[in-house]
Amino acid sequence: MTRVPAPPTRTALDELVAALPEGVVVTDPDLTGKYRADRSGDPGTGTPSAVVRAESTGQVVTALRWASRHRVAVVPRGAGTGLSGGSTAGPGSVVVSTERMRRITVDRLSRVAVAQPGLLNAEVKQAAAEAGLWYPPDPSSYEICSIGGNVATNAGGLCCVKYGVTTDYVLALEVVTPDGRALRLGGPRLKDSAGLSLTKLFVGSEGTLGVITEVTLRLMPPQPPPRTVVASFGSTRAATGAIVDITSAIRPAMLEYMDRVTVNAVEDSLRMGLDRDAAALLVARTDTEGSTADRELALIVAACERNGAGEVLATDDPAEGEAFTVARRQAIPALERRGRLLLEDVGVAVPRLPALVAGIERIAAAREVIIALIAHAGDGNTHPLIVFDPADGAAAARAQIAFGEVMDLAIELDGTITGEHGVGRLKQPWLAVQLGEDVMDLSRRVKAAIDPLGIMNPGAVL
Amino acid sequence: MTRVPAPPTRTALDELVAALPEGVVVTDPDLTGKYRADRSGDPGTGTPSAVVRAESTGQVVTALRWASRHRVAVVPRGAGTGLSGGSTAGPGSVVVSTERMRRITVDRLSRVAVAQPGLLNAEVKQAAAEAGLWYPPDPSSYEICSIGGNVATNAGGLCCVKYGVTTDYVLALEVVTPDGRALRLGGPRLKDSAGLSLTKLFVGSEGTLGVITEVTLRLMPPQPPPRTVVASFGSTRAATGAIVDITSAIRPAMLEYMDRVTVNAVEDSLRMGLDRDAAALLVARTDTEGSTADRELALIVAACERNGAGEVLATDDPAEGEAFTVARRQAIPALERRGRLLLEDVGVAVPRLPALVAGIERIAAAREVIIALIAHAGDGNTHPLIVFDPADGAAAARAQIAFGEVMDLAIELDGTITGEHGVGRLKQPWLAVQLGEDVMDLSRRVKAAIDPLGIMNPGAVL
Repeated sequence: MTRVPAPPTRTALDELVAALPEGVVVTDPDLTGKYRADRSGDPGTGTPSAVVRAESTGQVVTALRWASRHRVAVVPRGAGTGLSGGSTAGPGSVVVSTERMRRITVDRLSRVAVAQPGLLNAEVKQAAAEAGLWYPPDPSSYEICSIGGNVATNAGGLCCVKYGVTTDYVLALEVVTPDGRALRLGGPRLKDSAGLSLTKLFVGSEGTLGVITEVTLRLMPPQPPPRTVVASFGSTRAATGAIVDITSAIRPAMLEYMDRVTVNAVEDSLRMGLDRDAAALLVARTDTEGSTADRELALIVAACERNGAGEVLATDDPAEGEAFTVARRQAIPALERRGRLLLEDVGVAVPRLPALVAGIERIAAAREVIIALIAHAGDGNTHPLIVFDPADGAAAARAQIAFGEVMDLAIELDGTITGEHGVGRLKQPWLAVQLGEDVMDLSRRVKAAIDPLGIMNPGAVL
Repeated sequence: MTRVPAPPTRTALDELVAALPEGVVVTDPDLTGKYRADRSGDPGTGTPSAVVRAESTGQVVTALRWASRHRVAVVPRGAGTGLSGGSTAGPGSVVVSTERMRRITVDRLSRVAVAQPGLLNAEVKQAAAEAGLWYPPDPSSYEICSIGGNVATNAGGLCCVKYGVTTDYVLALEVVTPDGRALRLGGPRLKDSAGLSLTKLFVGSEGTLGVITEVTLRLMPPQPPPRTVVASFGSTRAATGAIVDITSAIRPAMLEYMDRVTVNAVEDSLRMGLDRDAAALLVARTDTEGSTADRELALIVAACERNGAGEVLATDDPAEGEAFTVARRQAIPALERRGRLLLEDVGVAVPRLPALVAGIERIAAAREVIIALIAHAGDGNTHPLIVFDPADGAAAARAQIAFGEVMDLAIELDGTITGEHGVGRLKQPWLAVQLGEDVMDLSRRVKAAIDPLGIMNPGAVL
């Protein structure tokens, strides 16, 4: 096997500083400390030796050539909003941050955007909108997460139930491989069967294969105005029953789930009159038109009522509909006020959602922890949020156990330990349980073929 | 580098025959000869030593373990309808045919089909339709091509301009790797970020990484009834201008192009009253509804008229619309009556389509060959068909030169040498020109990581 990467010597670091323009390489621990962790709650195991705040592909090439030469661990980083510890740094590693690489061009005619990785998702959406176009993937963190990070984790979001995830929009990538070669994978073409699908292989690879330095994205015409249904349920079972009924009949443009704990946390912070007594709330959208829109709206309402919904509100006022989406997006910040969070991201096929939700409730009861549940329910992707008091050691330990049990449950239900956040360091121990040793072995062989020295994001994913 | 695979010895062949049930392994040259070529016109370089007509994943495992042990070349094969020589056999190779693996189950609730690779695309569509669902990808050969081959080449079709290509529908695969391990990649989940995207890597790998033994496909609700526009143009330039105008404004559900040679060949065989004098014919579809459908239909008609279309026919009669689609699908068989065909599959971003079409006309004139042009124009994927008399040696040689020049032109226009047929053996010499040596090197390393003995489909793609 490959040698474990070692921290760079002082001389090696001086060489890196000298090879790049002033201000690009940061070694001051007051600054590098800020690049130690992401938003996963994983504290990382140490402060990086240096941070390369690259301004261009060429500077990433320089950094990776240097890292290969000195066998230094490289941790690629976008906006640092990852939730799985995919960009938390180890001691002696060098962070390659793409936060300064922020150019974008949009071609209206071919409906393609070419973006550097440091641009935020919201900025990509904005640039597309200025050209009269739409970039669909919409992680809840879209205002603070980078497009490079989105590609690295194959990020999802709320509209993905109908419009697909990041990989469905990536036509081409520029990547820098660990040996410091800048490669163009794919191209601005809707169909391309030439050679192995390396573009798709790099999407979701979480910095383990190289650094993404440019992304070519497919854009869409603007989304038609949506119509929204909000329904409250007296039991989680009733709510999940409605979800299965809706998704087996139509493709909603959004179908979100919030449980009672979440609704109350959001209501505490937004005061918008959500039903605090509801066991669960669904927010569904259709963006079809004409008679189809009428039919789909009626179908959603009927599915909710048939499953025993209390209040059902349907609106074609975009502002009113958007308010409920904002409420859903506020769930994590609102819950963070209740305690420390362990954020899950498990997914199953939609028909198994009732079993997943019931199982999570059993785990919460058995481990005496609060597990708030929000979900991109329409695609079976849930975010159980384990809320605990970090000062209570026993509670923190029980939370950790529940965190693992939720993943075990998802795997039992033929699901995934991560639908859209990535494996990172936090979920690495569970990946082999999901994939099995043969697939892990194949993955490691592919990783070694691209990163034979093992310098790319060691400890993450594999 | 790895040793070149060698033909199996008689003893080794006997061992293979003994390891599998009677009738699975075929060695009679009268039968194995039928597995020598696909529909690419590539005659292959020899008859395979044996054909394994596998009935199960376990039999594929047995065959690949045997092939690894004896270092025999394996050529995976679906229905044998490939157009790039991806399944043409070399002397001494063993063909693993999946034609007998034909089970399918459809789950209405999760909208997923699990199919064995030998099922035809049309049969997958049919099984989906029986459950009230739709499998979109629709190669023109959908009635004779297998779903396994579709996945192996990342096949496209007519509706892909709006609905995407095969890879967009593959949620999971079972594959047998060259060392004879059956692996499950992905799962029946709409979102999954767990580990490297090996599922997507196997899609489009043309049998160079392993044998696909099961495919899990995402299905859609039925397509809404389409409305069709047929427009004829006095010049190819006018037609390609209309294409760019249409695709930059809306996402048609189909946008097909046929040139004069094709229209006449189709008219000769179908006698449906197509305009024989037109330089080019467009067939466009929208499957939106309500006021959007009216707006899109009007927009398509206006774009055709603005670009100088002669006749423009709009119809919401599905049967009438379908007749034009059938005409388009008949193009290749109709042209095959004109001579031997060299079938191209080059693609560019749509705004570059006028330059591609004009360039192809220049090549045809310079090389004094007939190049008929059909295209999935809405996604920039064209099929220039070089028609020549195989008995005329000089003409055949000029056709071969033109074949390469068309690919060179596509690469110059930042396009691809294959949009949906795959590289196979026919286009292998051009792949490095398109991808560059660095990407070829990375591809070979990934291939070697999965197939270290180099037994999988040697000579194809890489």
